Amino acid sequence: MSDNQAISNRVPVVERLLTANEEVAADNRVQFRSHDVKVFNIMASPGAGKTTLLMATIAALAGHRLGVIEGDVASQIDADKIATTGTPVVQINTGGACHLDAPMIRHAVQALPLEDLDLVLVENVGNLICPVSFDLGQDFNVGLISVPEGHDKPYKYPAIFEAVDLVVVTKSDLLPYLDFEVDTFRELVHGLNPTIPIIVVSAKTGEGIGDWIAWLEDKLGRG
Amino acid sequence: MSDNQAISNRVPVVERLLTANEEVAADNRVQFRSHDVKVFNIMASPGAGKTTLLMATIAALAGHRLGVIEGDVASQIDADKIATTGTPVVQINTGGACHLDAPMIRHAVQALPLEDLDLVLVENVGNLICPVSFDLGQDFNVGLISVPEGHDKPYKYPAIFEAVDLVVVTKSDLLPYLDFEVDTFRELVHGLNPTIPIIVVSAKTGEGIGDWIAWLEDKLGRG
Repeated sequence: MSDNQAISNRVPVVERLLTANEEVAADNRVQFRSHDVKVFNIMASPGAGKTTLLMATIAALAGHRLGVIEGDVASQIDADKIATTGTPVVQINTGGACHLDAPMIRHAVQALPLEDLDLVLVENVGNLICPVSFDLGQDFNVGLISVPEGHDKPYKYPAIFEAVDLVVVTKSDLLPYLDFEVDTFRELVHGLNPTIPIIVVSAKTGEGIGDWIAWLEDKLGRG
Repeated sequence: MSDNQAISNRVPVVERLLTANEEVAADNRVQFRSHDVKVFNIMASPGAGKTTLLMATIAALAGHRLGVIEGDVASQIDADKIATTGTPVVQINTGGACHLDAPMIRHAVQALPLEDLDLVLVENVGNLICPVSFDLGQDFNVGLISVPEGHDKPYKYPAIFEAVDLVVVTKSDLLPYLDFEVDTFRELVHGLNPTIPIIVVSAKTGEGIGDWIAWLEDKLGRG
């Protein structure tokens, strides 16, 4: 055996290089844990009802201190809406990018009082595809699908249904007017992610909001 | 002046380098024009009703020979639906990519009988952000927004409203059940793109489908 071969044999094998985003996401995670803050990354199509669910959550979640990060390509109308409730909120404008990333979150949390919070809800950019690939440092991923989008979305956008810890079907008050088959949707989702819970909600009628709050409280449990 | 400076002064200034995508898009455009085929790139969120509008178009557009290219991350259920009408259709699966690009279109059109067609409707991947940046070689861009998505979308996704030649508001049959303000939406869109036409349609009731067909026929006019 030559010296070169001996050296080569001692070179450690790096199985997978962390990307810059993953490194920052890991730092974010350390920071969140050091403050005992749980972070939920909420992903959905444009107009699926993310902000409306956040408003219902703020109204219904008692006994936990909540912060919000709003992600949008442009505008701050969602953050302005959240701010009317007195909830600490930061708006991220991606300036064209189709998803949030870990450095954006690192920057945004500097404006949140982490030491006074129990959880942060992150509303990602409206997009069923791109946000799935970018770790933010969150503890849980939540995917929203609104009834008007149709029950066939798991066929077309499988990655999000594989990546999330909970699926929330929103706008259930529209079920009477549309062809969304809840049972078919459940079967398609469970074909991709067999044990994932699925909650059907309407922020308008209040249906299912209690189940959503119970799921959040279970994840916040300090057990 | 040194020889080097003289040479440097004669180097042509390339104002803007074409990307690989733009080069292929230009080739696609040449191919479409050589067959006298008009191409429409249809962009919208997931579940906004792109395929349903295509089905209504196939039923209503008489006297023009139509082909369809369906773009999805995964599955071919949209193309299967179109195929039931006998319309020539090709499904593109992007395998994860959040938009169609010109090379995908170049590949797909090989399976379409361009010499027998007057127009091709391209249904892009469900996404309000990424498809806007990729030229496919189309003649016209059409943006769809469904009533359940809300009238505030121009604030949050301005680029698509600046890029398109027509905005179609879909699912108008749901207006009685939702807070979508059509006049506010028109104002926001015209703030970004002052002269763009906006057509309000429902594939369910047929409202506005005639206006959409008239717009298409106008663009197809051989004048």
